[in-house]
Amino acid sequence: MKKPVIHAPAAAMQKLLEELAAFSAPGPGVTRLLYTPEWSGAQHFLQEKMAGLGLEVHTDSVGNVFGRLNGSQHSGSVILTGSHIDTVVNGGKYDGAYGVAAAVTALHYLAETFGPPLRTLEVAAFCEEEGSRFPLTFWGSGNITGLYDGRAGDSIADPEGVTLMEAMNACGPGTGGSQESSDKSGNSARREDIGMYVELHIEQGILLEQSALQIGVVQAIAGQRRFAVRVTGTANHAGTTPMGLRRDALAGTAEMLCALERSAVEAGAPLVATTGRLEVIPGTPNVIPGEVQFTLDIRHSEAARLESFCAALVAAFREIAARRGLMLELVPTLATSPAPMNQALCEALEQICLEQGRSFRRMVSGAGHDAQLFAPECPTAMIFVPSRAGISHSPEEYSSPEELAAGLNVLTALLYRLAYEVS
Amino acid sequence: MKKPVIHAPAAAMQKLLEELAAFSAPGPGVTRLLYTPEWSGAQHFLQEKMAGLGLEVHTDSVGNVFGRLNGSQHSGSVILTGSHIDTVVNGGKYDGAYGVAAAVTALHYLAETFGPPLRTLEVAAFCEEEGSRFPLTFWGSGNITGLYDGRAGDSIADPEGVTLMEAMNACGPGTGGSQESSDKSGNSARREDIGMYVELHIEQGILLEQSALQIGVVQAIAGQRRFAVRVTGTANHAGTTPMGLRRDALAGTAEMLCALERSAVEAGAPLVATTGRLEVIPGTPNVIPGEVQFTLDIRHSEAARLESFCAALVAAFREIAARRGLMLELVPTLATSPAPMNQALCEALEQICLEQGRSFRRMVSGAGHDAQLFAPECPTAMIFVPSRAGISHSPEEYSSPEELAAGLNVLTALLYRLAYEVS
Repeated sequence: MKKPVIHAPAAAMQKLLEELAAFSAPGPGVTRLLYTPEWSGAQHFLQEKMAGLGLEVHTDSVGNVFGRLNGSQHSGSVILTGSHIDTVVNGGKYDGAYGVAAAVTALHYLAETFGPPLRTLEVAAFCEEEGSRFPLTFWGSGNITGLYDGRAGDSIADPEGVTLMEAMNACGPGTGGSQESSDKSGNSARREDIGMYVELHIEQGILLEQSALQIGVVQAIAGQRRFAVRVTGTANHAGTTPMGLRRDALAGTAEMLCALERSAVEAGAPLVATTGRLEVIPGTPNVIPGEVQFTLDIRHSEAARLESFCAALVAAFREIAARRGLMLELVPTLATSPAPMNQALCEALEQICLEQGRSFRRMVSGAGHDAQLFAPECPTAMIFVPSRAGISHSPEEYSSPEELAAGLNVLTALLYRLAYEVS
Repeated sequence: MKKPVIHAPAAAMQKLLEELAAFSAPGPGVTRLLYTPEWSGAQHFLQEKMAGLGLEVHTDSVGNVFGRLNGSQHSGSVILTGSHIDTVVNGGKYDGAYGVAAAVTALHYLAETFGPPLRTLEVAAFCEEEGSRFPLTFWGSGNITGLYDGRAGDSIADPEGVTLMEAMNACGPGTGGSQESSDKSGNSARREDIGMYVELHIEQGILLEQSALQIGVVQAIAGQRRFAVRVTGTANHAGTTPMGLRRDALAGTAEMLCALERSAVEAGAPLVATTGRLEVIPGTPNVIPGEVQFTLDIRHSEAARLESFCAALVAAFREIAARRGLMLELVPTLATSPAPMNQALCEALEQICLEQGRSFRRMVSGAGHDAQLFAPECPTAMIFVPSRAGISHSPEEYSSPEELAAGLNVLTALLYRLAYEVS
């Protein structure tokens, strides 16, 4: 069968991206937090937009928005594509929104050009992924895949003390599905009919730009381990305490951070290890630090390597603390498993890149994405396009129209292959 | 000439210490900040106390309080002894106050026992040393020795925005000298008649306790260099930025802190080097630190060694920063010269310890003291007694009555030798 030429309308997608970016709280960049008026405005705009483009719109009880293009066959299993609609505070236009805008554009283009698909295609605009308003992530995809059941405890509240449940209820019918259906089922967002999931996203890293490649074919989303670490020594006078009599919590921490970096470099890519927050107590120039608290963020695409790295690191930290007479406490605060992408889909993406004459590389996503929630449930794929200077979660976030168009056409070609070329 | 037996009344000194400790703002320990009601109360109490003990009381324009025992000969040059009356917030009973209470007790005891001295003795209760209310230290001894001239700029203000000058003027005549004499002379606190200065103080370190010795004969007060350091890299996503592409300000800082500790240990005592404050920006667990700000506090009793250590350290920091692509800024924030104590006075103190059967050691004071202001002006000596667990600037600060009595008797014997045994 001759491959059709895929030429999705990138200008329409770019316009949709700009329209979505207009739904933002005041301030630099885009701020669209879960269940805020801006967020609600964007989700309603998207519903109208998709309906106008001929997609069958539906929502669910937590505020995910879907636009469906029914398949003429195989209607029982859906090929889902999209991303999240929420942003961080003062984020960019592309993180999440790009995957949504490209999915809408792709489905409309496919329907207009090739008619109804054999298998059902659906756009998803997930209500939440970032965890920027409430201390919880993946509320959108997590409710679809069963990580959540539509409920969050009262401890899940925003900085103003509004709980997630209060915010969701206050959003009312605008949340998505009618309030009644939510009340009746208790978990109307859970879906068992997703047969595949494909997500297009900006890289949020610098690898593609550095290697001047157009497309990243994601092999896996890295698993994460996070720890809160507390090192306790003895606060003392910086002038009167000889070096040999100190139990300096910061000097011990510095040795641990050097070990962290050295072992991460030795482990090699895709392992990354970071201390992003560190506090010194009492924090006075002429007092030897009695306590240091810091965070560890460690990621790898292979569970066994992630585990063994963390185990060796903890052992090294314990050795340093014991030798220095320091107390060490390590509390795990996050543990997500690596999410391998579907290999057949990865190969299909590589074939499409070759057919379209696009440069590409295989890569691991060090950042978390909605796709990691779907990967254990169904064949899942992710496509990356370059981020300028690797910058994301910032008003400076940028990918060029050409880069965005390349990703759109790869996505569209994959969806065509999955939904129209069913054997 | 047969040495007289010195047996100063330690109980009287202990009582005076307790009486002074009662002048405190509410809260744990003792809080007696410059020009506060508590401070004013203590200085007035001291004036009355000394007058009652037969000392000739005078004050100066900045609030230093003096109690004079006039010499029958050599009246032109004064042997000054004492310490500061102010405390840190929630400090102890002994820091500063011990040197004042012991001096008062010693002078009264000497006068009662041996009559008037040949050379004039004077107790000094310096108004300020700690820098706890205003961002300035040694306001008391500094005005006597010419470091200050009775004036401080409007930028020298307490956390409530009250300037030092406003606080001093509000204290009114209670400050010390009459307001008029201060206004007329502009610098009435400057004294040119100090022939010697002797200060008794708690060690505020753990060396005497660790070696189970009674007396520290201070050879020098360490000079200090302080720096504010800023390391700038690039904030980036902790998940998407490979180890090899990072410019992690905290990883670079950790390497610097390890180099700091290693080189300080290699340099050997009495060098000490400390980072007490450190801040990470932005300080988010999943963001690679783009900037770290930290302090350096480096001390040594020999100026040349202090300088060469600092120069080598800065060079090592620059090498680390350059290799990692980080920007390094080092701003000197404090530079005090080492203050060697007078060797004849040190030898006299050692002889007295031997005569009194007291164990002692020579040592360097890593902490700053009023004595360092006098050392360039006149022969100066310092005597240390043990601090339990080396703890100071805390309600936990403690030295036993026996330890305090030993220091009192060494001080008294030295004053006897200097003021009564004049050849």
